[in-house]
Amino acid sequence: MNQKALTIVKVGGKIIEDKSMLIQLIDKFSQVTTPKILIHGGGRSATQIAEKLGIETTMVNGRRVTNEEMLDVVTMVYGGLINKQLVALLQCKKVNALGLTGADANLILSHKRLVKDIDYGFVGDVDQVNAPFISHLLLDGVVPVVAPLTHDGLGNLLNTNADTIASTCAVAMASLKEVTLCFCFEFDGVLSDPNDESSVISKINLASFQELKEQGVISGGMLPKMENAFNALRSGVKEVVITSIKYIGDPEHGTHITLH
Amino acid sequence: MNQKALTIVKVGGKIIEDKSMLIQLIDKFSQVTTPKILIHGGGRSATQIAEKLGIETTMVNGRRVTNEEMLDVVTMVYGGLINKQLVALLQCKKVNALGLTGADANLILSHKRLVKDIDYGFVGDVDQVNAPFISHLLLDGVVPVVAPLTHDGLGNLLNTNADTIASTCAVAMASLKEVTLCFCFEFDGVLSDPNDESSVISKINLASFQELKEQGVISGGMLPKMENAFNALRSGVKEVVITSIKYIGDPEHGTHITLH
Repeated sequence: MNQKALTIVKVGGKIIEDKSMLIQLIDKFSQVTTPKILIHGGGRSATQIAEKLGIETTMVNGRRVTNEEMLDVVTMVYGGLINKQLVALLQCKKVNALGLTGADANLILSHKRLVKDIDYGFVGDVDQVNAPFISHLLLDGVVPVVAPLTHDGLGNLLNTNADTIASTCAVAMASLKEVTLCFCFEFDGVLSDPNDESSVISKINLASFQELKEQGVISGGMLPKMENAFNALRSGVKEVVITSIKYIGDPEHGTHITLH
Repeated sequence: MNQKALTIVKVGGKIIEDKSMLIQLIDKFSQVTTPKILIHGGGRSATQIAEKLGIETTMVNGRRVTNEEMLDVVTMVYGGLINKQLVALLQCKKVNALGLTGADANLILSHKRLVKDIDYGFVGDVDQVNAPFISHLLLDGVVPVVAPLTHDGLGNLLNTNADTIASTCAVAMASLKEVTLCFCFEFDGVLSDPNDESSVISKINLASFQELKEQGVISGGMLPKMENAFNALRSGVKEVVITSIKYIGDPEHGTHITLH
């Protein structure tokens, strides 16, 4: 095993909520032979639980407005339900998973997002990742499973975007490891034709990204994901891939993001 | 600091749900100077959230019957909400807390309780505690905060009594450390007169326990707590104390349990 390599896999809520996709994720992630980290979202589960509890979900620009009640919901759903189910399933596959939020062992310190036009509430923007602690766990053969929650060091948990956590963790680890950051979603990669699931673009660099953006091929939620990817590469992350769970760890598939 | 010493503090749901008691707990626990572990319950919060979600709570002999829906609730509430709030509050006091369930890093392996007269559902009886991992964390200055959930190694989380987790962790650590196990509840110790909060019995040994039991002074939920305490002492735990949060780490107060 290449101890210098590190694979960071990020999966969204859609994958975790679908039982067959969840099983496939556990299976594929278990087979990754390098040291690894799993980072998960879970927005839709939180929305469902909140609804059952009579708490209204407000989204602005695709981001959840997190008041005190909603913070409790995401703490329960992300930090408890989803995180611990993933850990138990990975343990069953003999992956020594350890579930974490950013508060645990001071893993990810953030600050409450400043209010400009919109008050997102208890939402955190990341300031610092505890890379030595992650290294320490990896060295012990532990596999961190990270929920999209951080803390401000003042006693408050903060809801934090899982893509951002994935890319900031990748950047923080880049000086110590050769990091491959793998964003998993429902398609096999970025599609050139949204109606054709086989139209995966195998490689996107900064120049082709500009073109694809101008042509409207890449739009909406994929834009911040791509920006995250380029930022990670600029900060020393070795490789960024956007792919489906079935191709986790498979370099022959997915969309590979590069600077040049 | 005496690195050989280890203080394990167990607190119940009543303490965590009361804001002023919670603050006092964080304050007192932060001041414990030995390596330490916090183990928490949280039954009443789970009951409240379950009720809001329209899930009925069934208790038999003071123990929660845990069907699949209820398992999700306790996973959310114990492993998420309560555990992570405690961790964030301790981090604010510069205690390097790390929240864990028994599934995390395979901390506590259990089996689903066999059905005899009553089917308790997804309830775990502890088989094994990962003492080397706990030692490792303590050596790094990490303070484990343990939720009352375990796993069966087959992918299932199991609801597990927090007192049992506290005493089995204490026993597992007893060969490596001089363990003081501190059960915190709402009174300053075991009372000789339930109507007089100042009537704390300062010391109970096996002989006086038998007398107090026969006299009916010790009854109900205190009986399994006492049995847990004596079992822990028989298995090498150095000291067991039943006390209130305000006397955590204070040897002058509380009820001290001894074998002889």
